[in-house]
Order: sequence, then structure tokens, then C-alpha cells
Amino acid sequence: VSALADDVRQGHRRAVARLITQVENDDPAARRALIELYPFTGRAHVVGVTGPPGSGKSTLVNEIAKALRRNELTIGIVAVDPSSPFTGGALLGDRVRMRDLAGDSGIFIRSMASRGSLGGLARATGGVVKVLDAAGFDLILVETVGAGQAEVDIATTAHTTLVIESPGMGDEIQTIKAGILEIADILVVNKADRPGSDKAVAALKMMLHMGQAAAVRHHGQVMAVQAADGLAPQSAGWEVPVLATIATEGKGTNEVAAAVLGHRDYLKASGAWLEREKARSRKEVSQLLQGQLMARLQAAVPPAELEAVIAAVARREVDPYTAVARLFETLAV
Amino acid sequence: VSALADDVRQGHRRAVARLITQVENDDPAARRALIELYPFTGRAHVVGVTGPPGSGKSTLVNEIAKALRRNELTIGIVAVDPSSPFTGGALLGDRVRMRDLAGDSGIFIRSMASRGSLGGLARATGGVVKVLDAAGFDLILVETVGAGQAEVDIATTAHTTLVIESPGMGDEIQTIKAGILEIADILVVNKADRPGSDKAVAALKMMLHMGQAAAVRHHGQVMAVQAADGLAPQSAGWEVPVLATIATEGKGTNEVAAAVLGHRDYLKASGAWLEREKARSRKEVSQLLQGQLMARLQAAVPPAELEAVIAAVARREVDPYTAVARLFETLAV
Repeated sequence: VSALADDVRQGHRRAVARLITQVENDDPAARRALIELYPFTGRAHVVGVTGPPGSGKSTLVNEIAKALRRNELTIGIVAVDPSSPFTGGALLGDRVRMRDLAGDSGIFIRSMASRGSLGGLARATGGVVKVLDAAGFDLILVETVGAGQAEVDIATTAHTTLVIESPGMGDEIQTIKAGILEIADILVVNKADRPGSDKAVAALKMMLHMGQAAAVRHHGQVMAVQAADGLAPQSAGWEVPVLATIATEGKGTNEVAAAVLGHRDYLKASGAWLEREKARSRKEVSQLLQGQLMARLQAAVPPAELEAVIAAVARREVDPYTAVARLFETLAV
Repeated sequence: VSALADDVRQGHRRAVARLITQVENDDPAARRALIELYPFTGRAHVVGVTGPPGSGKSTLVNEIAKALRRNELTIGIVAVDPSSPFTGGALLGDRVRMRDLAGDSGIFIRSMASRGSLGGLARATGGVVKVLDAAGFDLILVETVGAGQAEVDIATTAHTTLVIESPGMGDEIQTIKAGILEIADILVVNKADRPGSDKAVAALKMMLHMGQAAAVRHHGQVMAVQAADGLAPQSAGWEVPVLATIATEGKGTNEVAAAVLGHRDYLKASGAWLEREKARSRKEVSQLLQGQLMARLQAAVPPAELEAVIAAVARREVDPYTAVARLFETLAV
């Protein structure tokens, strides 16, 4: 075992920070360390927190972390900013607000921004979670700006997914889509001092009720769709709570922390914990397979040949299906 | 050539609608038809339109379509709703507003919602664009809720990408990220009658100026990152216009339509059109390759064996890298 991996296992903060940087930079040394550390992962409770920009996510994460610290748990916080042109922005200010946690040695905070592709960021986030897990943090909060693929990726990585809404954002009616029901283990309506928050809570409860009815009705199909996307099947036996908070005043955040711990107990008692671990592993194995298959293909086909095929497709001299079939023939795969 | 493909080529609306439904349903007949139609694609000017919920995208698309119709162009409109839990919502209302275009035989409108995965929706959108292209529509507007991966996918599919902002959404400061500069060929600040719109226009212009400087400074690197993501390299020689509109009153929309046509002329004259076609083809070939490689793997490894490997990874008995290496050995790929 390398010295760095060993230092991480012992929870040395500087080693943790250094390995995380290597993971972010996709350093080959990071992969070796992650392989070494893998047997020591799987202990931390990974909690994904997602919600639209302006919902007060970071403040809420801050307060949940404080509440969990009072339960003697050590906490890792990974704040992911997918750098969408339209979201984020708030993250910088929220990082400043998080500084009041930074003096606590039981908390480790790391902000990650997208440098290259979204796929790269998702992979790196998985790696960072493993590092914090192996370093012995009891609970890891992964905060992302929720829009599009990001929150689905969270749902496949996290044991518990917390979805945050806030009433009255913008001037359009915020329709909360059915997709939310498939990923949320806990729903939070933040900024509950705003007008419309009661309605938001009631609407979410109604949608949950309807969603559960639909899930029972089309049970086999729903399970199949979710399995195809790598999502864990929706939990039977866990009633998704809808909680109201005013994070800026610390109101309702103890209840959210309690719900997070309650969900962990539920997962452990019901066997759903292992199911979620399997879903995560399935996704990771599948992504590694795809990546390596593509790497082997690229090694086997000369770049000039691949470019010629792509140019022929672009000029409509050959359709993409036929082009790919010919590439397979070349490979004799 | 099948009767359906032939009818599509002749622009018969019912055949177009039927084939689009087959594409959405991933019907095997659709793939055959798309192969037959592929040589007749590549003529339409594909224009991606993206922006956050509440920016007035659909109304603007409506008005741009009307303006382009006055130039005697036939128009296809594909409205894509990735069904994010947090976005959309407005789409339903906007579809209603679009009805005033529906009586025009030179316009074909199709709304698409995500049923399964986002990846599936992106594939289907590419197929629908091909159908409308082969059917002879001169210009195809692809409208998506812009957040996360969606707008990057647009940038790889479209010849021209139009990014819409609006001033004063929500109560948080909207920071427009640098990523916007990499995908926008035309920037529009809609709802320009709102306070703050002048500031939004000025901020975008300043960011564009800074972005161009940065792109020149790190030219090689920027190109490399973009190529890795399948994006076309940023256009040299095209100055991204920042236009102000009030779409609900039809103000400024003729200028947007003119900019769209101006960008087309630029692409054709500079050779960038073929470069964008190559970027699209590269992505499509790469996705087909990945899909078929995975299909072959799944055919070669018994499901029970794959499940056993995944369970071992979930239990930390083996790390995912080693597991994947063993799967490759089994396959002898």
C-alpha cells in the first residue's frame, strides 16, 4: 500500500486533500490509490443533495452538517458545480457562507467545478467520495446544482437523495415533474417563510401519493425502466417525508438531519443498502467497460482511418450505421 | 426504398409524423428508414435554441419561425423537454401559444418529452432532425430547456446555437458562466423591457470579449478540450452578436432571424459548415460504437455472471478496475 493511501486511511487531512486533487486531475497515481483504498470504502453514508439554483441548497447543507455534528458524526461535504451556463453562480457566495464550518476538524469541505466534460466531473465526484469514505468520514454530503442528468447521477451514487425545492422562484409557475419522485428519499421545501410554501408542501405530498399509486399500478414496468438507467428500484417501505425549513434561521434543519439518519437505518434494516451499493457498482462497472472498450477501439483503428470514416458520414457518402458495421469488421471483434 | 421513406422524402406530413413516432419509440423500422433517408439529409440548417426556464424561449422560437417564413423558408420545430424535475413546466403553456403556427403548411411542429433516459431523448432528437431534413424543411429549430448536458448536446447537433437569457430571473444574481461562450453562436437577451436588460446585454458583451481573449491565449488547449467533448472548435471569424428582444411583442425578432441566416452564410463561406457536420458525425459514430460494443458484451457475458461480478464489487470483495479487467479476459477481446 502506498504511503499516500495509508495516510488517507488514517484520515490525515493533507493526504486526503492531495489525493482528491489527483483524482480531479485524473492522475494515474490516483487510480492506483483508489484501487488500494477500495476495500476500505463502503462504510460512509453517502447523501446526495440536489435542487435548483436559488433554493438555498448550500445554506441547508451547512445547517444539516452542523446538526449531524451534534450527533458526533464526522462529515465530508462535496459541492459539485456542473458549470452549466445557466445555473450555479450562487455557489461562490455559498462557499463563503460555509467557512463557519471550516474550523471543525470533523468536517472536510471540497468544492468541485467542471473543467472538462460533465462525464469527467461525475467520475471525479465518485472518486472523491471514495477518498472521503476510506478516510473514515461517517457521512458524506454531495451537493449539486440539480438540473438534467446531474441529479440522476447523484441518485445512482448516493444511499440517500435529498431534493430541495423553494416556493415562488422566478415568475413562472414551477411545475415539479414526476421525475422528482423517482430520485427523492427526502423532500425539503426551503425558504418556508415565503408565501406559497404551504402550497408547495401540499403539492409535493399529493404528487408523492399519486406517484406511489402509479408505481404500484405499473410496478414491473417502473422497475424495468429504472434498472435500465442504473437507478435503484424505488424503495418500498419508506415513506418519503416532505419537510419545511428556513435554512438561514436554522429552522427545521434538525428534522432534516433526523430524516437522513432515519433513512440510513431503514436502508440497513431492509437490505436496501446493499441494493443501492449494487446499483452504484453496476453503473461504475458499466462506465469502466465502456471507457476501456473505446480505448481499445481507438488503439486498434488508426486515427486517419477513423477520420476518413467520419468525413464520409459527414458528406453523406455512407450512413453512420453502415460505417460502424464496417469498423467492427476491421476489428473482427 | 420503403414506401414510408419515399413519402417522407416527398414531404408528406402524415408520413413525416408517422416516422417521427417510430423514431421516438425506437422502432426497428425507423432505423431502416433513417438509413434509407440518410443520403437525403444534410441540407437543412439545424438551429439549436436553448435557455433557462422562464426566458421566453418558446415565444421567441415562435416569432423567429414567423420571421423566417417571411423569407419563404420552410421550418421544422422540435421542442425537447428533458423532463428535469426542476425545469420545464412552461413547455405545456408554450405549446398552446405555438398553435398560431399550426395552420401553416410550411411549418411542422413536434414536441418531445423524455420517457426514459436523457441519452435516449438525445438519440431520438437526432433522428427526428434527420426525418425533417430528408422531408425537405429548409431550417429546423430545436428548442430545449437549457441546463446541464442538454445544451452541449445541442451544440454538437446544430449548425447554429442560439442561447437565450432574460434579465432578473429569480431573486439570486444570475451569473452567466463562461461555458455559454463555448456554445453560443448568437446570444439573445429576451424580455428586454424588464429592468436590468441593458446590464445583461453589456455583461454578455464583456464576457464574450474576455472569452475571446482567453480562447486566443490558450488556443491549443481550448481546442483540445472541445474536441474531446465532440464540440466543434469555436468559430474564428464569426463575431457572436448579442441581441435584445421582446418576443411577446415581436420586437427584435426579425434581427434574430437575420442573424441566424447570416450565421448560415458564414458557415457555408468559411467551410465551418462541413466542420460542424464532421463534429456531429464523430459524436454519432462514437455513440453507435459504444452502444454496439455494450450490446455485444451483454450478449457474450451471461447475466448471472455479470450480476455476480457486480455484487462482488458492491461487497468490496473486488475493486471495479480489477473486475472489469477480468471481464475483458473472459471475453478475450
